[in-house]
Amino acid sequence: MRVSKYLLSTQKETPANAEVISHQLMLRAGMIRRNASGLYSWLPSGLRVLRKVEAIVREEMNSAGAVEILMPMVQPADLWAETGRWEKFGPELLRFQDRHNRDFVLGPTHEEVITDIVRKEVSSYKQLPLNLYQIQTKFRDEVRPRFGVMRSREFLMKDAYSFHLDQQTMDETYESMFQAYSNILSRMGLGFRPVMADTGAIGGSLSHEFHVLANSGEDLIAYSTESDYAANIEKAESPQPTETRQAATQTLSKLETPKAKTIEELVEHYGIAIEKTVKTLIVKGSSEEAPLVALIVRGDHELNEVKAENLEQVLAPFEFADEADIRKAIGAGPGSLGPVELSIPVIIDHSVAVMSDFAAGANQDGMHYTGINWERDIAEAPAADLRNIIEGEASPCGQGTIALLRGIEVGHIFQLGTNYSEAMGAKVLDVNGKAQTLLMGCYGVGVSRIVAAAIEQNHDDRGIIWPEAIAPFKVGILPMNMHKSHRVKEHAEKLYQELTEAGVEVLFDDRKERAGVMFADMELVGLPHIVVIGDRNIDAGVFEYKNRRTGEKQEIPFDQIVEFIKNGGQV
Amino acid sequence: MRVSKYLLSTQKETPANAEVISHQLMLRAGMIRRNASGLYSWLPSGLRVLRKVEAIVREEMNSAGAVEILMPMVQPADLWAETGRWEKFGPELLRFQDRHNRDFVLGPTHEEVITDIVRKEVSSYKQLPLNLYQIQTKFRDEVRPRFGVMRSREFLMKDAYSFHLDQQTMDETYESMFQAYSNILSRMGLGFRPVMADTGAIGGSLSHEFHVLANSGEDLIAYSTESDYAANIEKAESPQPTETRQAATQTLSKLETPKAKTIEELVEHYGIAIEKTVKTLIVKGSSEEAPLVALIVRGDHELNEVKAENLEQVLAPFEFADEADIRKAIGAGPGSLGPVELSIPVIIDHSVAVMSDFAAGANQDGMHYTGINWERDIAEAPAADLRNIIEGEASPCGQGTIALLRGIEVGHIFQLGTNYSEAMGAKVLDVNGKAQTLLMGCYGVGVSRIVAAAIEQNHDDRGIIWPEAIAPFKVGILPMNMHKSHRVKEHAEKLYQELTEAGVEVLFDDRKERAGVMFADMELVGLPHIVVIGDRNIDAGVFEYKNRRTGEKQEIPFDQIVEFIKNGGQV
Repeated sequence: MRVSKYLLSTQKETPANAEVISHQLMLRAGMIRRNASGLYSWLPSGLRVLRKVEAIVREEMNSAGAVEILMPMVQPADLWAETGRWEKFGPELLRFQDRHNRDFVLGPTHEEVITDIVRKEVSSYKQLPLNLYQIQTKFRDEVRPRFGVMRSREFLMKDAYSFHLDQQTMDETYESMFQAYSNILSRMGLGFRPVMADTGAIGGSLSHEFHVLANSGEDLIAYSTESDYAANIEKAESPQPTETRQAATQTLSKLETPKAKTIEELVEHYGIAIEKTVKTLIVKGSSEEAPLVALIVRGDHELNEVKAENLEQVLAPFEFADEADIRKAIGAGPGSLGPVELSIPVIIDHSVAVMSDFAAGANQDGMHYTGINWERDIAEAPAADLRNIIEGEASPCGQGTIALLRGIEVGHIFQLGTNYSEAMGAKVLDVNGKAQTLLMGCYGVGVSRIVAAAIEQNHDDRGIIWPEAIAPFKVGILPMNMHKSHRVKEHAEKLYQELTEAGVEVLFDDRKERAGVMFADMELVGLPHIVVIGDRNIDAGVFEYKNRRTGEKQEIPFDQIVEFIKNGGQV
Repeated sequence: MRVSKYLLSTQKETPANAEVISHQLMLRAGMIRRNASGLYSWLPSGLRVLRKVEAIVREEMNSAGAVEILMPMVQPADLWAETGRWEKFGPELLRFQDRHNRDFVLGPTHEEVITDIVRKEVSSYKQLPLNLYQIQTKFRDEVRPRFGVMRSREFLMKDAYSFHLDQQTMDETYESMFQAYSNILSRMGLGFRPVMADTGAIGGSLSHEFHVLANSGEDLIAYSTESDYAANIEKAESPQPTETRQAATQTLSKLETPKAKTIEELVEHYGIAIEKTVKTLIVKGSSEEAPLVALIVRGDHELNEVKAENLEQVLAPFEFADEADIRKAIGAGPGSLGPVELSIPVIIDHSVAVMSDFAAGANQDGMHYTGINWERDIAEAPAADLRNIIEGEASPCGQGTIALLRGIEVGHIFQLGTNYSEAMGAKVLDVNGKAQTLLMGCYGVGVSRIVAAAIEQNHDDRGIIWPEAIAPFKVGILPMNMHKSHRVKEHAEKLYQELTEAGVEVLFDDRKERAGVMFADMELVGLPHIVVIGDRNIDAGVFEYKNRRTGEKQEIPFDQIVEFIKNGGQV
């Protein structure tokens, strides 16, 4: 491709409103442009990467025996009514009416549509197991789209759905998808980690996420230093306390604490050890009898909202109570709450159950209790795992301790059980001629998100550093003063032709630009290999080569350059 | 691909509500399934064809120097407001609001979005000409979706947009697209015809359609028997009458015609030659002063609605007047209208201008006039080309006569001039540093429609007959009694492996089905080549081969079969 016939559209300035590096670099490198909030156009360099990611995903899905189909983006509401998601799904589900006032949605996912197809097309166990996938545009009406294509409203996704009559083939297909996802990310040259995950709103029994590792990742991964245990921190079980509760040594005392709105202030101004404090968090409950529930974790611990949401007493999706509701029910604001004489149900973290002589808000603004002890001052409360595991704690697998990594979720696989098939009556006849409800698995890859995640992991201060497998072009040709030097032009054109004929994707900068501009563009766009052609090198019978990742420069003889590039920058 | 791992989903019965053969066969062959009115899922066999069509389109667009991008399906309304299409576009434009009550559309086309991108990204003549395309899902909220994917609401389209500062590069790109479209359809093995077309609602100055020829086509193509002239009948100019108007020989007489509601009845019951009758058609006018306009064509001619719509006095989009409005304005119903003493503006076809002694309705129910003559009985009216050209008439090109063919429009190319760039202020600096408004071209291919059109052109009573280039698989392997004969299984598995390794796409029917069922499925799905493996043939050292298109059978020795299939069924 000649730059003169291309839409390179690079920008020097870091764009405003782009918070993360991948978003900034995708804009600067001319990969995407914003059309509206959360809506992007993929410019040529971006689309070339997107299509490569798509192709690798497709190849690995096909290799794993999945069969490709394509479902419509616009879906009739009646299918969503069947599973109850027409009502239950939040405002991320874009609902609209057509010209005949019939209800439709713009599909954020396709469980309903695929289950409808399978219940009509599959009637016998002989047709199973079946794993159907599509690579297709999805829409989620995010309340606050951000980070470019990392969390956009319209995005490209691979979603697969498998159908089974027995747990064994369900497990086999799940395992094959696990392997396919590992292959996909390995082939792309990305550092990644599969982790155990919460099944969340989509439901089901077993789930893994695939994370591209990057310091900027939104997710925390807890892994064992000794085993291959790894889980999203949302899911990683905190260890049970090894210590037992000590006997009370202090009396219950009320303390005026006008300066303590937070645990940090309580510790700082009133000399209480943070391990002797608790945080009392009021969240919305799941029942009318208990519209508010108090969750209590130790002062130095963090509430894990996913674990909380999974409790029966807590509303899903998880939501903190409003201050007004808290004041009405308890008579104090969030900075002064505690378990003593609390009128709403309490659930405590396991580590809180073994505390003694601890401090907490007195449910009266500006007042705390110290010397609180279970049984003596307050009734024992039910305990659960409510908090995030901490680096250095024992791994739930029993081996080693926990370390943390940051990751970007790019894939997610689930065993759904019969959640959808039951609701939609998807049954087939088993070997005995008896109708059985199908087991389902579902498997998603965020195709457009992978592009952004790859950049978060692979960049430097000059721009993107593409892994070869997904680079928009493998090599850039940079002729120096081509418009003045006939020899440079001749060599550049010849090399362009030879590389192209050898099946190498080349970006040939044939613009009348200064060398510095051309170099900066190539490095910003992130092509793995750069070949510089100048009069000086021609005299020496070599091309100057630069490796984008290592920065290493080499001189490569004319007759070796094509092989050298084909070999990925090796002789 | 093994049928046991695939979703074949063939059906014997012709489905109800599928009017055209391609729709019937796509359902029966398991290519598509309906999810809602005008919304289809592509099952595996359908998607394989769709992806092949897409790949050929992409290759030819790339070869022609177009650069691929991807724009969002969801588009902000403000861009459509800039061109006025937010208001002007009919209810086919699906408008909706997001969760923040902002207006959006589901894109039926992308002129606004691309023009917005180009006005921001292209600033200099050095970046031109530029031809950007995408292959993307579109949505048109058709009032009456029909014919399966031929006229669905959600569909796959390739749309390209080119930008120029001068007419010369505009013409060159237009010509390159013309050639690319010809290549695309030729490579797919489809009989097609490029024809001159009306520019219609999208506007512009020059336009060609590409039609796949099929008897079931909705469009009529008028072509010259002697030259390469071809035009959509909407566009083909009718010849001016060669005869001159004869002098009046009859007196104007009023005739009671209770049995004549139509021209045919007038001719049948009252003995009037059809060439001596006219049809008076009342359509909506474009101005408030003339809300109704009468269009008059000869009794044996057909009104051409596109030609009519292009008249200044006629409302666009074209619409016939309601009977109630006609009665109110004229005092008679549609069966009894005529030019004598007519109170609304009249436009007549050129052939009507040379008529004499003719008959027409008397604008009084059940009454006609005979012996009508211009000037004597009614004032001369403005004449225009209002009718369809007729087979056998002189070709507008001056060579040969007109013959008619039926076609399915699968491609359309336009020169748009500055329609969109002017409205949206898309200008770049020319070589003199002066801002100039861009010229635009646009070029569409109905990717999903091509699949249906190919079937309309290529089928028989047993099913689809795929051209090799777009067949879902190149060859089907049909083993006879594989589940009983070890030898058959062995040979079938070996052949499947050899063909697959040779890069041939194979559908291997490994089901426990009767030979008749398997044969019927293969022929219905339409694979070009079928290889039958049975015990009898194995003894003879050959496979039985059947060509789907010719029906010809051959015996091919074991060691020649792979080459034979690779060669497209030739030794």
